[in-house]
Amino acid sequence: MSPKITTELLKQLRQVMKNPRFVQEPVQAYIVPSGDAHQSEYIAPCDCRRAFISGFDGSAGTAIVTEQHAAMWTDGRYFLQAAHQMDSNWTLMKMGVKDTPTQEDWLVSVLPEGSKVGVDPFIIPADQWKRMSKALRSAGHDLVPVKENLIDTIWTDCPQRPCKPLITLDLSYTGVSWRDKIVALRSKMAERKVMWFVVTALDEVAWLFNLRGSDVEYNPVFFAYAVIGMNTIRLFIDGDRVMDPAVREHLQLDSTLEPEFKVQVMPYGSILSELQAVGAGLSPKEKVWLSDKASYALTEAIPKAYRYLTPYTPICIAKAVKNAAETEGMRRAHIKDAVALCELFNWLEKEVPKGTVTEIVAADKAEEFRSQQKDFVELSFATISSTGPNGAIIHYKPVPETNRTLSVNEIYLLDSGAQYKDGTTDVTRTMHFGTPSAYEKECFTYVLKGHIAVSAAIFPNGTKGHLLDSFARSALWDCGLDYLHGTGHGVGSFLNVHEGPCGISYKTFADEPLEAGMIVSDEPGYYEDGSFGIRIENVVLVIPAETKYNFKNRGSLTFEPLTLVPIQTKMIDVNLLTEKECNWVNEYHQKCREVVGAELERQGRHEALRWLLRETEPLGRVE
Amino acid sequence: MSPKITTELLKQLRQVMKNPRFVQEPVQAYIVPSGDAHQSEYIAPCDCRRAFISGFDGSAGTAIVTEQHAAMWTDGRYFLQAAHQMDSNWTLMKMGVKDTPTQEDWLVSVLPEGSKVGVDPFIIPADQWKRMSKALRSAGHDLVPVKENLIDTIWTDCPQRPCKPLITLDLSYTGVSWRDKIVALRSKMAERKVMWFVVTALDEVAWLFNLRGSDVEYNPVFFAYAVIGMNTIRLFIDGDRVMDPAVREHLQLDSTLEPEFKVQVMPYGSILSELQAVGAGLSPKEKVWLSDKASYALTEAIPKAYRYLTPYTPICIAKAVKNAAETEGMRRAHIKDAVALCELFNWLEKEVPKGTVTEIVAADKAEEFRSQQKDFVELSFATISSTGPNGAIIHYKPVPETNRTLSVNEIYLLDSGAQYKDGTTDVTRTMHFGTPSAYEKECFTYVLKGHIAVSAAIFPNGTKGHLLDSFARSALWDCGLDYLHGTGHGVGSFLNVHEGPCGISYKTFADEPLEAGMIVSDEPGYYEDGSFGIRIENVVLVIPAETKYNFKNRGSLTFEPLTLVPIQTKMIDVNLLTEKECNWVNEYHQKCREVVGAELERQGRHEALRWLLRETEPLGRVE
Repeated sequence: MSPKITTELLKQLRQVMKNPRFVQEPVQAYIVPSGDAHQSEYIAPCDCRRAFISGFDGSAGTAIVTEQHAAMWTDGRYFLQAAHQMDSNWTLMKMGVKDTPTQEDWLVSVLPEGSKVGVDPFIIPADQWKRMSKALRSAGHDLVPVKENLIDTIWTDCPQRPCKPLITLDLSYTGVSWRDKIVALRSKMAERKVMWFVVTALDEVAWLFNLRGSDVEYNPVFFAYAVIGMNTIRLFIDGDRVMDPAVREHLQLDSTLEPEFKVQVMPYGSILSELQAVGAGLSPKEKVWLSDKASYALTEAIPKAYRYLTPYTPICIAKAVKNAAETEGMRRAHIKDAVALCELFNWLEKEVPKGTVTEIVAADKAEEFRSQQKDFVELSFATISSTGPNGAIIHYKPVPETNRTLSVNEIYLLDSGAQYKDGTTDVTRTMHFGTPSAYEKECFTYVLKGHIAVSAAIFPNGTKGHLLDSFARSALWDCGLDYLHGTGHGVGSFLNVHEGPCGISYKTFADEPLEAGMIVSDEPGYYEDGSFGIRIENVVLVIPAETKYNFKNRGSLTFEPLTLVPIQTKMIDVNLLTEKECNWVNEYHQKCREVVGAELERQGRHEALRWLLRETEPLGRVE
Repeated sequence: MSPKITTELLKQLRQVMKNPRFVQEPVQAYIVPSGDAHQSEYIAPCDCRRAFISGFDGSAGTAIVTEQHAAMWTDGRYFLQAAHQMDSNWTLMKMGVKDTPTQEDWLVSVLPEGSKVGVDPFIIPADQWKRMSKALRSAGHDLVPVKENLIDTIWTDCPQRPCKPLITLDLSYTGVSWRDKIVALRSKMAERKVMWFVVTALDEVAWLFNLRGSDVEYNPVFFAYAVIGMNTIRLFIDGDRVMDPAVREHLQLDSTLEPEFKVQVMPYGSILSELQAVGAGLSPKEKVWLSDKASYALTEAIPKAYRYLTPYTPICIAKAVKNAAETEGMRRAHIKDAVALCELFNWLEKEVPKGTVTEIVAADKAEEFRSQQKDFVELSFATISSTGPNGAIIHYKPVPETNRTLSVNEIYLLDSGAQYKDGTTDVTRTMHFGTPSAYEKECFTYVLKGHIAVSAAIFPNGTKGHLLDSFARSALWDCGLDYLHGTGHGVGSFLNVHEGPCGISYKTFADEPLEAGMIVSDEPGYYEDGSFGIRIENVVLVIPAETKYNFKNRGSLTFEPLTLVPIQTKMIDVNLLTEKECNWVNEYHQKCREVVGAELERQGRHEALRWLLRETEPLGRVE
C-alpha cells in the first residue's frame, strides 16, 4: 500500500477555498467529514470525498485542510492503515490517545484570528455542527456552510450517484407490513406530539418501506428520504425505480388507498425545498421530528422552535428489536453462512500448506462458498482476510500490494459476512494451519475468555450494552493486554451490518438499553503490531435469561449465539480456561454440530461435515 | 419516622410565589434544590431548605412546588426514606426507574401555558440552570432567578449560618504548602490561558489553603470563596476567624510577602459584587475559569464571552491524587479506625445477646471508640447503624422512632467513618451475631465476590472508574440480583468523604480516569426491602499493578485496601468462592492481623486483639 500523493490536490483545494465562485468569503479551513448526506457509514463512490483528498479510505475519519496543514482524525482501528495510505502532507490525529487534540482545539490552535471554517451543510450532522460551531465561535472563529461541495469542484472524474433497482420484501421476511410500520410510527409521533417525521438515514427508509436496494456496496439500501406526516407519506427517490411493477404493487401506488397511506413519490433532490415548505407552513405547536444526526442543511430547513430532535429516531429503536420473522431469518442466514465457512476452512486446511493461497484468494473463496447459499445477495462488508502482521491492522482489506500468502507459520484472521435476503451475517475466526506458539495460544485464550464473558453474561433488563464492555477485557487486562476498539455493534436484518442504537463499547454511553430481540456482535480481540491479530466474533441475539431470583421483578437477559462456526480448539490453552468456560466451548461446539451438521448433511457437503465434526470434538481439561 | 405535615407550609410558599414583595412576576412553580451556594453535598442547618419544606432529609433530592402539585425527585438510595418522611401532599419521583419523568418533562406536563418557574440563582448550578432553562423555553415557559430565597421568607426559625474557628494543617499532613498549590494552580491557568480562577466548592477552598473548619457537620470545611488571579489571592470569609494568630501565621497575613502571594481577606457576602467587578474589568482574551457546577448567580457575574467552564476544576483533579504525606496519613487513619471497630465488634459480640444494644447505642459506642484514637476530629458522615429491615434503607440513620434492638436473629449493617487530622475513613461491615440463614450467607457471598472483583481488578492506566462498576455486580446479576446505587466514590484526605472527580458507578460517565494515588470506596451491596441489607465497603488506594505484559507501554493499575477490618467469615458461603477469591480473603485477613494486630498490641487492647485473631482465621475451602 503506497500513500496517495496529494500535494497537487491540496493545492487545488486551497485555491477553491479562496475562490469567490465557490465561497462567499475565503475559508481558512475546510472540513471533509466521512459521511454522505444521510450520515451513512458505508458510502457510494461518489461520496468518498475524504478518501479522494487524502488517500485514507477507512470507514471512519475526518479530514481538515487549512492553508498550512492537512490533518486526519481517526480511531484505533485505523491508525496503521491511515499512516500507510496518507503522504507526508497529512498529520494523523489518533483519537482516543492521550494528548491528541480534538478537531475544535486543533483548529483554534492553528487558525489565524477571526477565521472562517467551511463545511458542506449536507454532509455535517446537525449535532456536530452545533458543537463545532460553538467551540469555534467562543475562540473568535466562524463555522460557515459552503453550499457547493469544494471537493466535488476539484474532483474532475467523480463517479455518478448510483440508482439501482429496488428489491421488495414480503411479510415472510419482514414480519410487519410497511403500513403497520407507518401506523406504529404515527403512534410514536402522537405520543411526542409531533406532526411530521423526517427519515434521513438510508437504512431507516429501507426498513420503513420493506424495500432494499444496492446503491451502496455491502448495505442493501437506496438513496432516498421520506417525510411522514400524520396523514401523508412522501418518498423522495430518483429514477424510474418506482416504475417497476413489483415496487408499484408493493407500495400500492396504483390502488385506491385511504389518503393517509397514499405514498407520494417525489424527486430525491427536492427534499430541501419540500422540507422548507413544510417548515414555512407549520402552525404553533406543530413539531417536526428529526434525528440530531440529520444534516445541518435539513435541520435548518425547520425553524428552531419547531424542531424535535432526538439522538435515536423511533424507527432506529423499532428496527433494532427484531420480530419473530426477522429472528428466524437471521438464524437461517447464520446457518447458511456457517455452511459456507465450514467449506472454506476445510478447503484452506488442505490448500494452505501448498503455499498458493493468498489473502485475496481466501477472501474470494469465502465469497464463492457464500454465493452458493440460498438467498445470497452480496457481502455485508469488505472481507478482512489477513495473515501474520496484516492481522494487526484492525480493519485491513487485502489489496494486491499487501496481499500475503497464508502459511502454516502464521495466524490467519478472517472477518467476513454476507447479506442474505433473510438476514445479515458478520463473523470472525482466527485460525492457525500449523502449530501455534504458546504465546499465540495464550493471547487467543484471553480473547476467548472475554468473548465468553460477554456471551454468557446475565444482566438485568434495562442494562445498556456499554456496561458489559469491561467483561470482554478483564482476562486481557489481568495480563496487561487490551484492544483498541469496542466489543460489539448492532446488526441489521438484511440491512446495515453496523446499526444503532445498541452496542457494547467503552466509548458509547448514549446507547439504548438492551432488550430481548436485539442483535449485536461480540468481538473482543488482541493485536500485536507487526506480528499478528486475533479476534473472535459471533453475532448474538438478546434473549430472556432464567435466574434463581428476580430482584424487583425486573427480569434478566443474556445472549444466544446466532453464529455457529467452530472456534479453533488448536488455538486454545485449555489450562487457562475455567470449568465454566470449558463447558461453554463444548456446548457451543455441540450446537454447531447439531444445527450446522444437519444443514451440511442436507446440502450433501460431506467433506465439510467431516471437518466440522473434527473441529468440534469436546475440549479435555488437563487437571 | 412519621411524615412531616407540610400543608400549611406549602400554602405559605404558594402565597409568596405570587407576592410582589418577593417576586417580580408570580411564579407558577418554584424549585428547591438540595444544595447550598457551594453545591455542597452535606449542608449546614440553615441551608436545609428542601428538608424544611418537605420533611425529606436525605442527602440528594430536588423539590418542585407548583400551584397544584409538590413533587420530590430522589434516587434509589432514598426511595423508602423519602416515602416515610413526606406526607400525602408530595409525589415521590423515583429517579432511575422507567417512566419516571425528568423534572423538565414533568414541569412541561403540569404547567399552564407560558409559566414562570422560579429558583434561587445562588443555589442552582449553572449547568442545571442551562439544561432546565432550555427545556422550559422550548415548551414556552421561562426559568427565572428569584433573588430572595422563597423558603427563607417562610422559614421563621431558620438557624444562623455557622462561623466556627479554623484548623491549620502543616506540611506533615498536607505534603504541599498552600503557596506551592497556588503556584501549581497558576501554571494550570497559564496552560489554559485564563487569568482568574474562582474557587466555589468549600472543600476546594479548604484544600487550597491547607485550612479546615467545622461549619458543616461531618465535612471539615468552612464557608468561604476564593478568587485566584495570576498576581492576586482573594479569600472571601466571614467572622474574626482570620484574627486567630495561628491562621494569620499560616496564611502569612502579617508578613512582607511577594505581592502575588499576599492573601487579601474579604467578606463572604462580597463575592458577587467583587466578581462582577472582575467581570467588568476584563480585557479581550482574559478568561475566568469556573466550575460548570458553580452557581448560576456567580457564573452570570462573568460575561459569557469571558467564561471558561469545565466540569472538574484543576483543584478538584489535583486534590484527588494524594501525595505521599496524604497517603501515609490515610493509612494511619485507617489503622486507628480499624482498632476502634475491632473494639466495637468485640463489644457487640458480648452485648448483643443481652438484648440491650440498640442501633443508636451501637452507633454511639462506635463513635466513643473512634474518639479514643489520636487526632480524631469528628465523624465523617452520619453513622448508618441498622439491623434487620432497617438495613434495607440504604442511607438509613437511626432515630428514636425507628431505633431497633440488635439481636442474634438479624443481620446488622454498620456504615461509619471518621475524620482524623491525618485522614478520612468510611467503612461498612455486615455482621450476624447469631446464625445466619443459608440465603443470607448466599447473598452476602455474592456481594463479597463483587467487592473482590473490583478490589482485585487490574486495568490499564487511563481507565475510568465507571468501567469497573459491572465487575461489582456480575455475581449478583448471575442470580438475578442487583443493588440500586453506585459502587464507589472518591474519598478526601481529612476532607469530604464523598469527592470527585473519580468514582465507580454505572451512572457517571464524566468521571476522570483513575490514576495512582487516587482513593475511592468499593462498596457493593444487596438489599431486600422489609428484611435485611448487606454491604461490604473498603476504602482503596489506586496503585500501579505488575502485569506479565505491558500493551502499548501503558502500564496497569489495581487497588490496595486501606480499610483493614475483618470481613465476617461466618457470613461467607465458602463453596460459592473461587480459589482466587478465597485466597484474596485470606490474604486480606492476614494483613489485618499483621497491621491492625500490631497497633492493638501497641495500644494494649488485648481483648480486641484476641477478637481480631479469631475473626481472621483462614477460610477452609470444602472441596
